[in-house]
Amino acid sequence: MKLKEIGEFGFIDRIAPLGRIRAEGVVKGIGDDCAVVSIDGPDYLLVTTDLLVERVHFLMDWAPAEVIGRKALAVNLSDIAACGGFPLDAFISLAIPEGLDVEWLDALYQGMHRLADSFQVNLLGGDTTGSKSDLVINVAVTGRVSRNEVLFRHTAREGDVIAVTGLLGESAAGLDILLRKLQLPADVAEPLLTAHLEPRPHLPEGRFLASSGACTAAIDVSDGLSSDLGHVCQDSGLAAVVYEDRIPVSPALAGFADLTGKDPIEVTLSGGEDYVLLVALKRDMAEDLQRRAVDQGMQLQLIGEFIAGRGMELVRRNGTRKPFGPRGWDHFRA
Amino acid sequence: MKLKEIGEFGFIDRIAPLGRIRAEGVVKGIGDDCAVVSIDGPDYLLVTTDLLVERVHFLMDWAPAEVIGRKALAVNLSDIAACGGFPLDAFISLAIPEGLDVEWLDALYQGMHRLADSFQVNLLGGDTTGSKSDLVINVAVTGRVSRNEVLFRHTAREGDVIAVTGLLGESAAGLDILLRKLQLPADVAEPLLTAHLEPRPHLPEGRFLASSGACTAAIDVSDGLSSDLGHVCQDSGLAAVVYEDRIPVSPALAGFADLTGKDPIEVTLSGGEDYVLLVALKRDMAEDLQRRAVDQGMQLQLIGEFIAGRGMELVRRNGTRKPFGPRGWDHFRA
Repeated sequence: MKLKEIGEFGFIDRIAPLGRIRAEGVVKGIGDDCAVVSIDGPDYLLVTTDLLVERVHFLMDWAPAEVIGRKALAVNLSDIAACGGFPLDAFISLAIPEGLDVEWLDALYQGMHRLADSFQVNLLGGDTTGSKSDLVINVAVTGRVSRNEVLFRHTAREGDVIAVTGLLGESAAGLDILLRKLQLPADVAEPLLTAHLEPRPHLPEGRFLASSGACTAAIDVSDGLSSDLGHVCQDSGLAAVVYEDRIPVSPALAGFADLTGKDPIEVTLSGGEDYVLLVALKRDMAEDLQRRAVDQGMQLQLIGEFIAGRGMELVRRNGTRKPFGPRGWDHFRA
Repeated sequence: MKLKEIGEFGFIDRIAPLGRIRAEGVVKGIGDDCAVVSIDGPDYLLVTTDLLVERVHFLMDWAPAEVIGRKALAVNLSDIAACGGFPLDAFISLAIPEGLDVEWLDALYQGMHRLADSFQVNLLGGDTTGSKSDLVINVAVTGRVSRNEVLFRHTAREGDVIAVTGLLGESAAGLDILLRKLQLPADVAEPLLTAHLEPRPHLPEGRFLASSGACTAAIDVSDGLSSDLGHVCQDSGLAAVVYEDRIPVSPALAGFADLTGKDPIEVTLSGGEDYVLLVALKRDMAEDLQRRAVDQGMQLQLIGEFIAGRGMELVRRNGTRKPFGPRGWDHFRA
């Protein structure tokens, strides 16, 4: 049997039962943004790891080495953010093709260093080895979060409000520009390329939400809104309703949609690598929390709600309802 | 500048200063078998990570998937052993070439699972993605060790005895058999292939030594005795003397040397991937510790001593002294 027949999540479901050997101390193993482990003291230990492979996740000519390095770390910090945590240390493993210049690698580290410095994360340990073909970057990050504040994806409740901490779809549009080498006006292309290449890990948002007492569940939007909302629904045993007119569409994404003939809402639903947080909020606290978030310079868009049942529905501007499924990125399916 | 001009350790020296951003809590960052981090409670947190790349570290036709999976985990557990620690959780990232059978991946996980089960290590989290060419396996492992018992490589003292917890050179001979497709008698080939493909992480030895009060420094022999002893010497500011007649040479390695015309002592010095522990022992406790180790079914060969100065010398059977340098594996040099 080939992997594409069962997909990435089918494969994870297949191997997950093998992994749990010693239940003691493991709060969450496979199937959330981070593994959550019990250690001495008031905090949980968070661990997340991401493997980036040349020609699968990036091309070397898309961006300078600094940008590639920065993003490799950013996507892991986003996982810590989704658990409401503080990042601690990053462990970088590199498999380096022969002939790659040391100066390129220096720049890769500079990019990681700059972001690490912003969040006071150490770049420790790791492993450095050769590769016969593609550059490979694995980043593992540890973090901590108070036992009372940790955020999971399986804990949303019926009636909770669905919110996102930033724009959706811009990164997917930026990727499309890179893949199809589209020539678009700078005011359209630049924000979208930045969204794809230089995502900001929403660590302040994660801490704000985790400490608010109003947030019941969280995930970072890496596979696309529809896919990641689908994870929260499935793991929480709920359905979701999303309102088209509340989904934030940036001017750049609107321009991209106009120029390429795409439906911007489709792009926001099926895109990926947004690295904003998708969260469940207690209904009676959501609007107040939104005001406080905006006062602190953060975004918190209330885009829908969790309801009893299964599946996801989009309420169009004209009031019609349209079911949608997870259409986000799966690394092994066509 | 190309990486092979500065080598793996030159590259690590180059990037290490970039990594230390927040000194608080970091006991050891880059440059030991594990990163050692201060957390709440009486223990340090250990983190180690190893990246294995097809065609660099293994060939798919060398061994069944179970054996490859087992070894990927074993080499990380060996790093925990070298710090005297207990392993906790492993985080597996895979980049999987299209067309690889799910059954092969199941077997890979089975191999990891069996070893993980032996040491009660969970296989958690991680990441699964595609690869355009080679299979890539990254394993990150956390562990813990009492603050009073952690073992480093920079803490050997003048006069300490050098000891190893098992045989040297067998793994390098096994690799040579695989690379050159040598046809050797089974009683020679089998132990050597097993040593290379199925190394046993010396976790019991690591705990025994760490809790003995007699061990002042430790490293696992992954790059070869000469190279890893060189690390301890350099980091501890010492020289070393090793006695040829005390280096354990197994019958299989002796047979291999006979049949291939190699010097078995050269193989033990310059080999690699032995995954035994190389340790420094307090002189007045070394022999007693050796007796206790043997009583518990472990090996502890006293092969030399640390002295003041720089460099390493081998005392030959005839009493002559021969300096030697690190000749272990460096992933980027010729």
